[in-house]
Amino acid sequence: MIIAVIGGDDAPPEAFVLAEAVGREIARRGAKLICGGLGGVMESACRGVKAEGGTTIGVLPGTEAGEANAYVDIPIVTGMNQARNLVIVRSADAVIAIGGGYGTLSEMAFALRLGKPLVGLQTWSMQYAGQPAQFETFEDAKTAVERAVALADARSGVTRHA
Amino acid sequence: MIIAVIGGDDAPPEAFVLAEAVGREIARRGAKLICGGLGGVMESACRGVKAEGGTTIGVLPGTEAGEANAYVDIPIVTGMNQARNLVIVRSADAVIAIGGGYGTLSEMAFALRLGKPLVGLQTWSMQYAGQPAQFETFEDAKTAVERAVALADARSGVTRHA
Amino acid sequence: MIIAVIGGDDAPPEAFVLAEAVGREIARRGAKLICGGLGGVMESACRGVKAEGGTTIGVLPGTEAGEANAYVDIPIVTGMNQARNLVIVRSADAVIAIGGGYGTLSEMAFALRLGKPLVGLQTWSMQYAGQPAQFETFEDAKTAVERAVALADARSGVTRHA
Amino acid sequence: MIIAVIGGDDAPPEAFVLAEAVGREIARRGAKLICGGLGGVMESACRGVKAEGGTTIGVLPGTEAGEANAYVDIPIVTGMNQARNLVIVRSADAVIAIGGGYGTLSEMAFALRLGKPLVGLQTWSMQYAGQPAQFETFEDAKTAVERAVALADARSGVTRHA
Repeated sequence: MIIAVIGGDDAPPEAFVLAEAVGREIARRGAKLICGGLGGVMESACRGVKAEGGTTIGVLPGTEAGEANAYVDIPIVTGMNQARNLVIVRSADAVIAIGGGYGTLSEMAFALRLGKPLVGLQTWSMQYAGQPAQFETFEDAKTAVERAVALADARSGVTRHA
Repeated sequence: MIIAVIGGDDAPPEAFVLAEAVGREIARRGAKLICGGLGGVMESACRGVKAEGGTTIGVLPGTEAGEANAYVDIPIVTGMNQARNLVIVRSADAVIAIGGGYGTLSEMAFALRLGKPLVGLQTWSMQYAGQPAQFETFEDAKTAVERAVALADARSGVTRHA
Repeated sequence: MIIAVIGGDDAPPEAFVLAEAVGREIARRGAKLICGGLGGVMESACRGVKAEGGTTIGVLPGTEAGEANAYVDIPIVTGMNQARNLVIVRSADAVIAIGGGYGTLSEMAFALRLGKPLVGLQTWSMQYAGQPAQFETFEDAKTAVERAVALADARSGVTRHA
Repeated sequence: MIIAVIGGDDAPPEAFVLAEAVGREIARRGAKLICGGLGGVMESACRGVKAEGGTTIGVLPGTEAGEANAYVDIPIVTGMNQARNLVIVRSADAVIAIGGGYGTLSEMAFALRLGKPLVGLQTWSMQYAGQPAQFETFEDAKTAVERAVALADARSGVTRHA
């Protein structure tokens, strides 16, 4: 299982704390992390995964592997700028959004567009014609990751026993 | 000047009427239209442009020019699925969003991410931490297009005289 | 009909002369030109088209329309670096390769991969297991463009009368 | 270190044998494999890597992880068709080309364009103006992989001791 964490370079400190905790929870469940591979929320999530011995994939916008943060195991170099956002979402079994960047919003929209399980943590809410976009939001990392994993399992037909 | 109209295949009938009126206003101002080249809002906007003798560019997600609607003058065939959304936004001097598709939301997010002028017509609103995303919304096609053109002019340093 | 001219920024002067002549021939036949939108062979081809009053489309690798050469009518801004090469080939009804750049070679390969009509002018030859890649080469612009147009017509089922 | 093996779905049986041997040699040197993730040469290379306990990354053209061959550890889902070829080349420290597909030729051209170390095994040769494209070719898997690793090391400034 591959879980995406989407979030920007620039975010409030509590978003970084949250992202690191999300990374830890992803690794504890044996899932791999995929993200944008740069700093901020992305780096915090990667650091959390590595603290628990997990695997991190960084899908980079630029043309050099060297732009990846220090916790990326597998740098994927796209050279396609923001088009790499779609690669992250498409490669993930579920998507966790953290914080309020516009790049994050675009990835949330793609997850919804593609029907990928999406959960939010301190992130955007969106409404059209009085109706909110359909995804669940949580306050803590553990519950968010549990829910993302459960949604990914449900989508792939897997049953896990406690 | 190139103006993007973003909107989905599937939308309520009033969105199609609005999109066609937007297309007419774009052509009347001598701007070209760029859009996703398929049906629904995209086709309606193209039809409006052609009714006024303007030029339409359709940036297609699939691998064949034949998927373009009948009002596309210049089909750009990407074969990159939703990654084509970024090409639309990057190629435009201003972006007009119509309706409530998730693809539309992703393009709005990219426009905001890239700092492109964005105006909305019967479309999404988004908030983060109690603050709305910063773009203007309008109720009618003429005012929306006037504002989009003015924002694009301001960005490129052009002054127009009435 | 849209004809692609592929060729690099850097080429010998005779390639530029050839590219401009190809551009003129494309416009004389009422076809549009699509190319990479930058300098060298691309700029020469665009200049030739504009000298005959035709239309030029430049599919740019970078993030700004301003990088297009002065003869591009419709700049398509991809922000995807060399991935834009595929957009050029996919959007064309036939492809004309000029000169010896590696980017040009990649586009020739894509044209062959996608089954697009391809003709060569002072360009690469390639062999595998003793067999050459299957495309025609010419020495002059007029014959090359005539052949490209004929191949594109054959592919789309059009018959033209002299 | 990440080594790319590029080659098509369709190739003669000896190309598959060669690709599997290349995969084994890559894994024995502790490098990861990146490839297109589908069948043929790609699957054979992945099988070789897994036989030696290595790691395989498959960069897929389509929209579903399920199209990866059974030996892919990390499926990267691009949804961008052949544009994924560039992601493979950009993400690799060196590139090994096997066989005579046109997709393979396009990736060789991109490797040359980007200045990535490239070695060939039973693959294309290309000439422009009487000069061959500059890359080394080998007859056996072991020597080819040794050379690819040495070229990648030289590029990144690493010295290995026998």
